[in-house]
Amino acid sequence: MKKFHVFTIFPQFFEGFINTGIVSRAVKNGIIQINTVNLRDYATDKHRTVDDVVYGGGPGMLLKPEPIFRAYEEILKNSKPYVLITEPWGRKFDQAFAQELSQKDEILIICGRYEGVDERVKSIVDEEVSIGDFVLSGGEPAALVIMDAVIRLIPGVVGDSDSLRADSFSDGLLGYPNYTRPPVFKGMEVPEILRSGNHKLIEIWRRWKQIENTLKKRPELLKQAKLSETDRKILQYIKENRSFDDFLKDNNV
Amino acid sequence: MKKFHVFTIFPQFFEGFINTGIVSRAVKNGIIQINTVNLRDYATDKHRTVDDVVYGGGPGMLLKPEPIFRAYEEILKNSKPYVLITEPWGRKFDQAFAQELSQKDEILIICGRYEGVDERVKSIVDEEVSIGDFVLSGGEPAALVIMDAVIRLIPGVVGDSDSLRADSFSDGLLGYPNYTRPPVFKGMEVPEILRSGNHKLIEIWRRWKQIENTLKKRPELLKQAKLSETDRKILQYIKENRSFDDFLKDNNV
Repeated sequence: MKKFHVFTIFPQFFEGFINTGIVSRAVKNGIIQINTVNLRDYATDKHRTVDDVVYGGGPGMLLKPEPIFRAYEEILKNSKPYVLITEPWGRKFDQAFAQELSQKDEILIICGRYEGVDERVKSIVDEEVSIGDFVLSGGEPAALVIMDAVIRLIPGVVGDSDSLRADSFSDGLLGYPNYTRPPVFKGMEVPEILRSGNHKLIEIWRRWKQIENTLKKRPELLKQAKLSETDRKILQYIKENRSFDDFLKDNNV
Repeated sequence: MKKFHVFTIFPQFFEGFINTGIVSRAVKNGIIQINTVNLRDYATDKHRTVDDVVYGGGPGMLLKPEPIFRAYEEILKNSKPYVLITEPWGRKFDQAFAQELSQKDEILIICGRYEGVDERVKSIVDEEVSIGDFVLSGGEPAALVIMDAVIRLIPGVVGDSDSLRADSFSDGLLGYPNYTRPPVFKGMEVPEILRSGNHKLIEIWRRWKQIENTLKKRPELLKQAKLSETDRKILQYIKENRSFDDFLKDNNV
């Protein structure tokens, strides 16, 4: 059982996320637990104040340290989670980071506000994390994204077919185009090869499309991609503007 | 009035987001409208099927084209939105992209599933977008992040103080540490300067901290940052391991 704690002033923000799709299923199956903590429940005054003005002057309000520490100490009674705080300038969240986090037993995410958090809160933080170079209204959307990416890596959460599809990206190339029924839709046809039943041909065509897509949209990826000898041949044909049919003919496929 | 349409198979996912904080306020004030469209409502069979198997074979299911086109044509009766689809390999979402989107009157986000969407859907898409190099369970978390970042840029959505704080990052340096009450918490003190009331001194100290932080955590940012002559002097002191007090003394502050 993997446990997530989220410190937020908007616990209701996460309700839709927790009750949807694979996350909801993982909760119901007892694979994960998501504990959203309303910081206001740990305020010390009757107005349940969680923020205050900035020392030295400045716009906006800061999250006060006391509610965060009180909520954290409550958790410490039972366990010692790995603590993240969302920060515009934190370590960039990526798939490797998600993998690391999926190994932790318990994770606590403190949702920062853009206005900020009292610096002393950092004394309990293991890592500051940012999901990208954009400004959000608060840490909640980032916390949600981090949980989603980590949860789907936990064994038993997604089915085999999903994992298989994910693996298809692991060679560092863009995906190939996919089609489902109907065969013709608004005049747009599913490529004949995909309906041919010739699996060897389909495999070559998909590889051609992957390389073509990558060359067009993210050429820099080709440098580090794992390319077979056939892949390199395909790349050569595409660069020379020669057709897929030529490739098949020239290579006796 | 700015309008967002979201095509999803999980409309309830967005409820918490729509009912929280600045987004909820912007909706109530009539500044924005968020129209979550359940693709199942546009399915053509009694089982409300929205996905189907992949032509040519492969794991997972694809979103069918018909429900998406039917829902899109419904919107076209009244307006022509700018259409995005979430895609692991799409254009990277960043603050500049958010700015561009905040200029559009209407935006439609099609939440892809990781398994994929029938390629013919791309014929109505203006841009494919990715929020980062990580794998999500579906397009919903990405759509939520995109809307959040765009919504806070729409005039009237966030207060002046928030915008001011955001501006403080626009010089390309990391932020300075912020503190609020109490002055001493668990033995950790708010730096004396911030309680001094000396605004000139506070300004220099904060600048010092910004440069120090940036040098420590994201040194590459210093190359493109807009640095004044004083900033450069501060940077020199930090690099030479000289103290803030020395800097004040040497520069007669």
